[in-house]
Amino acid sequence: MPANIGALKDVANRLRIASIEMTAVAKSGHPSSSTSAAEIVATLFFNEMKYEVASPKAPYSDRFVLSKGHACPILYAAWEEAGLLSHEQILSLRKIDSDIEGHPTPRLNFIDVATGSLGQGLSIAVGMAWVGKYKDKASYRVYALLGDGETAEGSIWEAAAFAITIVDVNRLGQSQETQLGHEVETYAARFKAFGHNAIIVDGHDIEALLNAFATARNTKDKPTAIIAKTFKGAGIEGVENLENWHGKPVPMEKIEAIKSKLSSTQKGSIPIPSPIKDTPEFDLNLGNIKIAPPSYKLGDKVATRAAYGTALAKLGDASPHVIGLDGDTKNSTFSDKLLAKYPERFIECFIAEQNLVGVGIGVGCRGRAIPFCSTFAAFFTRAADQLRMGAISFANLKCAGSHAGISIGEDGPSQMALEDLSLFRSVANSVVLYPTDAVSAERAAELAANIHGIVFIRTGRPALPVIYNNDEPFAIGKAKVVRKSDKDSILLVGAGVTLYECIKAADELASSGINACIIDIFSVKPIDQQTLINEAKRCGGKVITVEDHYQSGGLGEAVSSALADTSNVRVRSIFVRDIPRSGSPEGLLDLFGISAPHIVKAVKNFN
Amino acid sequence: MPANIGALKDVANRLRIASIEMTAVAKSGHPSSSTSAAEIVATLFFNEMKYEVASPKAPYSDRFVLSKGHACPILYAAWEEAGLLSHEQILSLRKIDSDIEGHPTPRLNFIDVATGSLGQGLSIAVGMAWVGKYKDKASYRVYALLGDGETAEGSIWEAAAFAITIVDVNRLGQSQETQLGHEVETYAARFKAFGHNAIIVDGHDIEALLNAFATARNTKDKPTAIIAKTFKGAGIEGVENLENWHGKPVPMEKIEAIKSKLSSTQKGSIPIPSPIKDTPEFDLNLGNIKIAPPSYKLGDKVATRAAYGTALAKLGDASPHVIGLDGDTKNSTFSDKLLAKYPERFIECFIAEQNLVGVGIGVGCRGRAIPFCSTFAAFFTRAADQLRMGAISFANLKCAGSHAGISIGEDGPSQMALEDLSLFRSVANSVVLYPTDAVSAERAAELAANIHGIVFIRTGRPALPVIYNNDEPFAIGKAKVVRKSDKDSILLVGAGVTLYECIKAADELASSGINACIIDIFSVKPIDQQTLINEAKRCGGKVITVEDHYQSGGLGEAVSSALADTSNVRVRSIFVRDIPRSGSPEGLLDLFGISAPHIVKAVKNFN
Repeated sequence: MPANIGALKDVANRLRIASIEMTAVAKSGHPSSSTSAAEIVATLFFNEMKYEVASPKAPYSDRFVLSKGHACPILYAAWEEAGLLSHEQILSLRKIDSDIEGHPTPRLNFIDVATGSLGQGLSIAVGMAWVGKYKDKASYRVYALLGDGETAEGSIWEAAAFAITIVDVNRLGQSQETQLGHEVETYAARFKAFGHNAIIVDGHDIEALLNAFATARNTKDKPTAIIAKTFKGAGIEGVENLENWHGKPVPMEKIEAIKSKLSSTQKGSIPIPSPIKDTPEFDLNLGNIKIAPPSYKLGDKVATRAAYGTALAKLGDASPHVIGLDGDTKNSTFSDKLLAKYPERFIECFIAEQNLVGVGIGVGCRGRAIPFCSTFAAFFTRAADQLRMGAISFANLKCAGSHAGISIGEDGPSQMALEDLSLFRSVANSVVLYPTDAVSAERAAELAANIHGIVFIRTGRPALPVIYNNDEPFAIGKAKVVRKSDKDSILLVGAGVTLYECIKAADELASSGINACIIDIFSVKPIDQQTLINEAKRCGGKVITVEDHYQSGGLGEAVSSALADTSNVRVRSIFVRDIPRSGSPEGLLDLFGISAPHIVKAVKNFN
Repeated sequence: MPANIGALKDVANRLRIASIEMTAVAKSGHPSSSTSAAEIVATLFFNEMKYEVASPKAPYSDRFVLSKGHACPILYAAWEEAGLLSHEQILSLRKIDSDIEGHPTPRLNFIDVATGSLGQGLSIAVGMAWVGKYKDKASYRVYALLGDGETAEGSIWEAAAFAITIVDVNRLGQSQETQLGHEVETYAARFKAFGHNAIIVDGHDIEALLNAFATARNTKDKPTAIIAKTFKGAGIEGVENLENWHGKPVPMEKIEAIKSKLSSTQKGSIPIPSPIKDTPEFDLNLGNIKIAPPSYKLGDKVATRAAYGTALAKLGDASPHVIGLDGDTKNSTFSDKLLAKYPERFIECFIAEQNLVGVGIGVGCRGRAIPFCSTFAAFFTRAADQLRMGAISFANLKCAGSHAGISIGEDGPSQMALEDLSLFRSVANSVVLYPTDAVSAERAAELAANIHGIVFIRTGRPALPVIYNNDEPFAIGKAKVVRKSDKDSILLVGAGVTLYECIKAADELASSGINACIIDIFSVKPIDQQTLINEAKRCGGKVITVEDHYQSGGLGEAVSSALADTSNVRVRSIFVRDIPRSGSPEGLLDLFGISAPHIVKAVKNFN
């Protein structure tokens, strides 16, 4: 235990001063949310955490996740104090040409993940800590600092933590007092009920904080949550513990009273503990992970979800860095095939999809693993905000969603994904793959593993025939023309179960002398615009899309959008028009208008 | 306390038998998840709850929410036992022409909300109970039955309950044991830490259950959670408490052993307590709720979020049934204007958006109130699954999302909604309104109040000029042509902040002799296809859309989709192409390519 309490108090006050200054210069931001955490961040960064200032992303450095992202001024101030950032840099807060943004971004080399949508940092920290403990087997630790208000988010309670959690209980939310105010005992009881060792401290008392961190470090059997009672705007006269100061800069002259408390204004006077360099170094080898080729016979009936599971297990063979995660659906998504082979590379997240995706982002965020999350595609909607933030974090995350569309049958609409293509297409910079058969499903998983970014693979429940040879090549952004003739007068575009309906329809149309070209879209995003344009023109400009999905944001809109600027091309779309119900898959395809007879009719009516 | 324990045991076993039978006939479904709750449901439906069998939706009847929706066979069995359903009806389980679906649907007259995506029922029950306690001030009570596995969902812990919660702790999830197995004490500790009176009971002991319900009824100061220790597949030999029986029918012959335990096979032998008829009756008067007209001057600078708040307060004047809900952002969304005027009609849900939407669905689900939920539009993504299920529940829910797009400025991408149009468009049967100025924002709120269904209103942060007269009429599905001439050679389509950029661009283009027609889309869904087609053709088939949103599922795709089947029309779309950053609103509009100069350039390049 260092005796340097006075120096740490000075650090806390310097962080406080910097937070006020940078938000005052920016004319916006959250000084009051920052200053409540001044002592917490000072003790963390200048006594508790071990890291190299010059290389904050070094694999052996301790990690820090600021879940209450709006308090980032205090974080920037800490990195200035440590010597990484200049004063000029932190004063560029919130400017358009500065990465010192209004909320943390991994564009900065000391930040692993974006935060700012509350309640997400703990899941991510848990994922990072899982990698440290079980994969890296290294000494680095992961700290997550939470706001009190964000503990109202259920996602916090989904994250059964390995990480060391600190809750900054500053009492005040944005618009009023939080539900629990300063009831620190209740916070402690909640964390205890969720399996933590909970310690209540005065969050402005450096010595108490140092003791709490020491206790946390020495508690091996369970995670520790430090419940720090603080005051919003702490140390700022006329702001501390008062409402209506959330997200507002305070007058610069408030700094003077804090300055008078400093015994020294000298920055960087405290040595930062060196990390233990026991973290393995490696490259994920993206682009070169090859699975054993698919081994099916044409016509074999295999669900794409089953083929996904097979491919995931093969990816486990091909790379020690592939990690599977699931939400108690592994026997339906077939991610249990990886679990069976590599139990040490599988994380069961139970029925908690926000945590599933959050932990996945944490597992993948430092280039130390390739996370594959799976659940029913419908239930990924539960994690839509985590996915949105994942994009802002430039996350490397693979999501495989099974049970797409009405073709799941009897379980009914609550289990049917009919907006998943829309959800994942709208994730910035995402890739959306929709394999039709087992061969393409295996290749989709392989392609996903080999690129950095958020990739969604949509898989289906029913077992349907293999239509591709085992050596058929697939690529992101490339569609497959599965039927083509010189006399095509219509282009049908489908994927998954509707591709089979397109084939049936084309067979029937052929018998009445109408030739249809068929495209298996495979890569919904990025979409193969050139092939669509070429084939649409070749077919006389008539295009019909067919999808087991609602209209908005789905295949039809993706194709319409890709062809919107091409002259003399018209697109009609067939999709699920109403809320479905229970029934047999075949019966539902027919009742909801996406089966072969409906396609035939649409072609014949297209004039 | 009724002494009729033996009769209730018989009821429980008859429900068990029916659950096995109907899933065996359907060849799919969840008998094991049903039978663990047999005694719980028997005591609830035949002793504890007060309701009229003939009119289960009567406003004075007690309410029951089966949060573990997959266990619906036990619910159908209960309604057969009560005399509402015939045996033939329950044997139509999961058939395409039957409303006895694989998960509960409000197509059935004894169900208020769809369940099946786990962890959502408690929030809904809380919303229903809030209406009963604070709005109806009536005697009816609301019961929610939860599965143990679904308590891993954080949404459960967001719902600080008024309702009486029962957790069916049957130990087993879908793919393995739950996190907590049979640790009923831990469940109790968690509910206690979240403010409940928690009672642990043997969930197969009728007498213990009766006592627990009596205690719950007599506990007035806090909500009660009954933690019922049960066995999955209880009473079914060779299934009870064993893994790998989730969602699988069991052989019909298993019924015989249960039958032998019955002392009587006579149904309907227990009288059901009559409800207290003290619930007020009224009509929501949808279609006739009129707000005081907007009162702005053309050119006044007013943010649409502020106008929304003004309209919400006026709606409070116009109807006693309008209820506001927010997630600790009420001073940003301006829903605090309703709170200030009608504090008794406002529910602060804190930073817990899943609960915000779930409670809203509960508030609205019985035609007893019109819920308006508000938060930052970006944070509605947190409740995407609740919205998906809301559509399946045919929910009446209004969502107002503020801080749309990059025009919020310095706070950065975590706070910017850039996929909200996509999210809400993909909600089945939804309406999506995107008002540009204060007049249209007020009318959007009024229109939303007057129709049944899920309506999203997208509002912006910046204060921008009023462009419509106070008496301008607006309608769902109708766009506004805000500029038009005989010489138009291009159609510009925008909404919100981009409409102003379209106007600026058109002004500049006019100076170089290019006339642009401008459409303010207002209603993104349903979209005004006819006006788009007419104006697009009139403008020579050249259309440019401009939006403060990502491409997928946004305005450009909606317009492209609406024009996809029209010959000789080409659509180009301008949208936010990359993950944004902090900066001034004006700077960001320019940097991310959606400002007037970019529109001018796109028009000039459109050949």
